[in-house]
Amino acid sequence: MCGVCTMSRLGVAILGATGMVGQIYVQMLSKHPWFEIRAVTGNSTVGKTLREAYRGRGHVPEKYADMEVLPSDPSKIDADLVFSCLPTKSAREVEPKFAAAGFPVVSDSSAHRYLPDVPLIIPEVNPEHLDLIDAQKRRRGWDGFIVTTPNCTTVGFATPLKPLADDFGLRYVNVVTMQAVSGAGYNGVPSMAILGNIIPYIEGEEAKVSEEPRKILGRLVDGEVQPMDIPIDATCMRVPTIVGHLESVQVELGRDASVEEVVDSLAGFIGLPQKLELPTAPRRPINVLTDEERPQPRLDADAGEVPGMVISVGRVRKGRKPGTVMFVTLSHNLIRGAAGGAILTAELLYALRRLD
Amino acid sequence: MCGVCTMSRLGVAILGATGMVGQIYVQMLSKHPWFEIRAVTGNSTVGKTLREAYRGRGHVPEKYADMEVLPSDPSKIDADLVFSCLPTKSAREVEPKFAAAGFPVVSDSSAHRYLPDVPLIIPEVNPEHLDLIDAQKRRRGWDGFIVTTPNCTTVGFATPLKPLADDFGLRYVNVVTMQAVSGAGYNGVPSMAILGNIIPYIEGEEAKVSEEPRKILGRLVDGEVQPMDIPIDATCMRVPTIVGHLESVQVELGRDASVEEVVDSLAGFIGLPQKLELPTAPRRPINVLTDEERPQPRLDADAGEVPGMVISVGRVRKGRKPGTVMFVTLSHNLIRGAAGGAILTAELLYALRRLD
Amino acid sequence: MCGVCTMSRLGVAILGATGMVGQIYVQMLSKHPWFEIRAVTGNSTVGKTLREAYRGRGHVPEKYADMEVLPSDPSKIDADLVFSCLPTKSAREVEPKFAAAGFPVVSDSSAHRYLPDVPLIIPEVNPEHLDLIDAQKRRRGWDGFIVTTPNCTTVGFATPLKPLADDFGLRYVNVVTMQAVSGAGYNGVPSMAILGNIIPYIEGEEAKVSEEPRKILGRLVDGEVQPMDIPIDATCMRVPTIVGHLESVQVELGRDASVEEVVDSLAGFIGLPQKLELPTAPRRPINVLTDEERPQPRLDADAGEVPGMVISVGRVRKGRKPGTVMFVTLSHNLIRGAAGGAILTAELLYALRRLD
Amino acid sequence: MCGVCTMSRLGVAILGATGMVGQIYVQMLSKHPWFEIRAVTGNSTVGKTLREAYRGRGHVPEKYADMEVLPSDPSKIDADLVFSCLPTKSAREVEPKFAAAGFPVVSDSSAHRYLPDVPLIIPEVNPEHLDLIDAQKRRRGWDGFIVTTPNCTTVGFATPLKPLADDFGLRYVNVVTMQAVSGAGYNGVPSMAILGNIIPYIEGEEAKVSEEPRKILGRLVDGEVQPMDIPIDATCMRVPTIVGHLESVQVELGRDASVEEVVDSLAGFIGLPQKLELPTAPRRPINVLTDEERPQPRLDADAGEVPGMVISVGRVRKGRKPGTVMFVTLSHNLIRGAAGGAILTAELLYALRRLD
Repeated sequence: MCGVCTMSRLGVAILGATGMVGQIYVQMLSKHPWFEIRAVTGNSTVGKTLREAYRGRGHVPEKYADMEVLPSDPSKIDADLVFSCLPTKSAREVEPKFAAAGFPVVSDSSAHRYLPDVPLIIPEVNPEHLDLIDAQKRRRGWDGFIVTTPNCTTVGFATPLKPLADDFGLRYVNVVTMQAVSGAGYNGVPSMAILGNIIPYIEGEEAKVSEEPRKILGRLVDGEVQPMDIPIDATCMRVPTIVGHLESVQVELGRDASVEEVVDSLAGFIGLPQKLELPTAPRRPINVLTDEERPQPRLDADAGEVPGMVISVGRVRKGRKPGTVMFVTLSHNLIRGAAGGAILTAELLYALRRLD
Repeated sequence: MCGVCTMSRLGVAILGATGMVGQIYVQMLSKHPWFEIRAVTGNSTVGKTLREAYRGRGHVPEKYADMEVLPSDPSKIDADLVFSCLPTKSAREVEPKFAAAGFPVVSDSSAHRYLPDVPLIIPEVNPEHLDLIDAQKRRRGWDGFIVTTPNCTTVGFATPLKPLADDFGLRYVNVVTMQAVSGAGYNGVPSMAILGNIIPYIEGEEAKVSEEPRKILGRLVDGEVQPMDIPIDATCMRVPTIVGHLESVQVELGRDASVEEVVDSLAGFIGLPQKLELPTAPRRPINVLTDEERPQPRLDADAGEVPGMVISVGRVRKGRKPGTVMFVTLSHNLIRGAAGGAILTAELLYALRRLD
Repeated sequence: MCGVCTMSRLGVAILGATGMVGQIYVQMLSKHPWFEIRAVTGNSTVGKTLREAYRGRGHVPEKYADMEVLPSDPSKIDADLVFSCLPTKSAREVEPKFAAAGFPVVSDSSAHRYLPDVPLIIPEVNPEHLDLIDAQKRRRGWDGFIVTTPNCTTVGFATPLKPLADDFGLRYVNVVTMQAVSGAGYNGVPSMAILGNIIPYIEGEEAKVSEEPRKILGRLVDGEVQPMDIPIDATCMRVPTIVGHLESVQVELGRDASVEEVVDSLAGFIGLPQKLELPTAPRRPINVLTDEERPQPRLDADAGEVPGMVISVGRVRKGRKPGTVMFVTLSHNLIRGAAGGAILTAELLYALRRLD
Repeated sequence: MCGVCTMSRLGVAILGATGMVGQIYVQMLSKHPWFEIRAVTGNSTVGKTLREAYRGRGHVPEKYADMEVLPSDPSKIDADLVFSCLPTKSAREVEPKFAAAGFPVVSDSSAHRYLPDVPLIIPEVNPEHLDLIDAQKRRRGWDGFIVTTPNCTTVGFATPLKPLADDFGLRYVNVVTMQAVSGAGYNGVPSMAILGNIIPYIEGEEAKVSEEPRKILGRLVDGEVQPMDIPIDATCMRVPTIVGHLESVQVELGRDASVEEVVDSLAGFIGLPQKLELPTAPRRPINVLTDEERPQPRLDADAGEVPGMVISVGRVRKGRKPGTVMFVTLSHNLIRGAAGGAILTAELLYALRRLD
């Protein structure tokens, strides 16, 4: 039972719990008021304890240190809800098995993100897309379902785009990203490649980053998402930072707006998670900084009452091209951009009685 | 006498020779066929040898290691040409004294860059702006003159803009820069500020970067430069790299162009320094890379036959917005963006008999 | 009043509160059960608020964000206790004024550390040296007094030396340190000096590191400290880490000991702060790690219930030279090695009724 | 034909040419006066050109860019001499096949380094150990032979130990190493592990570093090496530098010596390669620096007329323990510690007519 709300705790499983995002899930869920970890799965670490699986790479809360890593097999798992941070390829195979076996799956993998009947959710931005679940279950004959969260890079600028779209309209977006090495997984970026260096390309990333906000900001029409019809350009770079994706964003608005109007739009934005006071929701999803030297990955990635859940926006200014606004945005790629975003999505599902 | 060309060597002085750019001047000029260092000046290091002045920070060619640092006073200096890499404030004061005393001054300081009668030169791009020298001397009653080179960040994208402007026309430019710490001088960026971090702002930089290409690509009309009339937006960031400013550039062309046309335009570009075969001129000023993961600061900053003089351009592609082209550019901020650019400018002056 | 212990809270002042260590004091004291910040002092920031003073460099708890920075003048300060993290030169001048004016001063500056009547304290190691206070007050005619804490590098290996000295005796110590850039203050290490680099020398550091443990582990004889009579060699290097000084230590013991004996000696060590259950005392001051790849600065600097107060020791093994033991130690240079160590010392003074 | 010496050029093959050390071999040999690359081998890159194999990771001289990577099979290779930088496991298998097939093999792999009849060579230190070749060929019935070079970490301190051993005798050595990431191969150290961090352990390294100098400084007795009989302790750490292993060394000498004597011993040291004026031999193998802040990896790894072949020694001073001397040493791990050391060894073999 949850002491605060008299609801009984939900048991959750984490698929792919031994990677870097998995570690964040375990940390965040080890003190969650509604969810309780019942099972963790892995691949090469099956049979080890979490302590052994994280050896040399990170910390594990004592409470779960001796939990055994299981294979990602629905028949072996007892849980009310499944979080998936599996690599794309195994997510493509495993997640549908869990959905078919009746599990609600909240996944930060890209495997099913782009399917028309799979919601791609930023809880503050498009909670109404969760209505796709019914069509998805019907169409696929599943007892469970899959809900996805966006790429760790998308969330940092798609979230501020929401109030701008609502208040001023959008015509064009150009984003240049400087992404932390943790975004590629523990072994993803060799130190020889990135120490004192920048790699001006991340395979497959720009297509994701250009398309996902169009789906997220799209409208539900006849049980499908009709993407927002504006072009988005993206240049994605890897930089020698540990956590926090920094992004330089240029937006052509639907109408001219002053810096004050834009700041008010961003800073004042709240969504359904704030109205429902979900446990992992920050009071305000966007924090607008006025210090010109901010946001900085090392200082600001952890911002917010729930560290890492706030998106920090700075340097809001008008472009020299009429009708454009420029800003810099930073979000924690492992928390808001992965585990935290998925947990908040699950809280939303729970609060909306989608897990009953 | 220069063994190759039978011209006698010119004696040069370096004002501000003990900073980071000064060290590059000394290295590059220590083996220059036309120029020979006669004097070096400094401020807090006056009276020391170059060896002492560079202690703990870098190497000095044996040939000049025992040269004494002089004050930046024209009456103390005997030289045919003066290079200045003084800090802005002292440049503002000192450079005109040298010009008035009859010295040709080639400066990479920003102090006089924006004056209408002072040429702001990228040798491959706008050598014709050197015609401003006559007006400058006349107007100011100087025997010498001041010629300037652009900000270390400007040169990396203003150079590729030249062939694009010539071949397709330009409507708008948006650049996001990731600048190495050496661009701020040896003590400019504390390690606490930048290790594993990015600072999304560099004081005063964006105004320079937005304005300079407009002057450089402008036309001479009635003895003044009429700036190119397009808006340029810039977002300038400091990143934890040592040398090499990496820039993500988006250009709206005057007409639609294919990637092949753009690549041909950039890769085929040559200017007057190439035609004159100046000693510090690379065979081609722009090197277009096809490997998507390039250019990278650590691998490519030193590119070119004269290391650091080539500008590396990669990731040339069309934007999703019609008529736009996107690319990434890298240039060595201390060489092409400072000492090397100034030396090449001086070579041009020499070859054009502007130093006679 | 402190809710827990019915003692009224002590008001404290922080001298030099606007540097990096000062920020840690403010953070740690903002939630301290016994102490409450009454005043903060600075130099160039006098008249600013803490928020302004930390701008661009760090966070300040809302509670103290609008506190005004005062000059370091005893007549302007109302406090029961003074923490000093002033630079050495001003500490030399200012701290005696405060002591003379009746303030107990706990200082992490090196200014008075080596005076025979000034205690140099690691609370777990030599609390009995606080007895020097009486002699100090008498000798100097002060109402107040000065107590010092060691160099941030000393504490990491002097603490483990204590149980080893007690259990096996010491003959010789050789330490090689890899010190984080934060140890030199915010502007202390230029990024040009340290990115991808190591500086094999830190001015003045090795003398401190070689001498301080001899005083700390010395005995009180006739109101003075008689240093422990063994040679200590130190090589101090600056490395590109943010926080956490890592040290490789070789010790010649007084008698041969097995690895198990040494581990038991270190892991079992507790001191007076543990017995008194002081608020900032970790349950065990030394945490012995068995994972060979630990301790690591990024993973382990924050170790402990009070983050940063535990010293992590790893790689305990015998040397090939008979009678020697080798290990690696890590301590948080800003917390255990500065603010946290001083706060724990103040708690000890308080608990021992030295502040009455 | 070599223009200088009238000897005909030797054709060489590089086994494992596509790794990081392989790249250095190709660069160094692309302008070598005696040797000429005839073949390069790899594993996963067989059939690719060197240009393709190095894509995204480094540069390849135009001259060899289109050379095809062959399998490491002696029947496919035509060469007078074979360099091997194969991984240990395949070296163990492949190198004896080449030796059996009549090739002289110079290997920087650890596979055969510790066999009693395989010379482990630093050309300046123990060229007389090449006499083991005859016994090796006889014992194993090979037409060819294997000569090895030490671990990249060993060479930096074993070289200075040689003159110290000769001039003063040695009793004990303790070395703490700070090793660059390139020492582990391109993919060896994930950026997540090392950015802003130190790993205080390198698997298997300390045993190598403790044993190799004992063999290198040992004497030939009855066709075998009798190791130098002193204990050597080593602590090996990985740090976030790109190239250059920095080592802090403490030595107990056989007799007391002044700093001046030690400096003279180190700085004056020359070996057979210097006497023979081998092409890759620096004029002096050890450069003693007097600037206390040197050597630094970024400034000094490339030191020497042949960049990277000089070992830089700094901070020479006496320890507080009687009879000890302390210093810091830096060597380029890919050049002096791998490819360059092996090439110099091959030059020595050539000059001594061991390749005839």
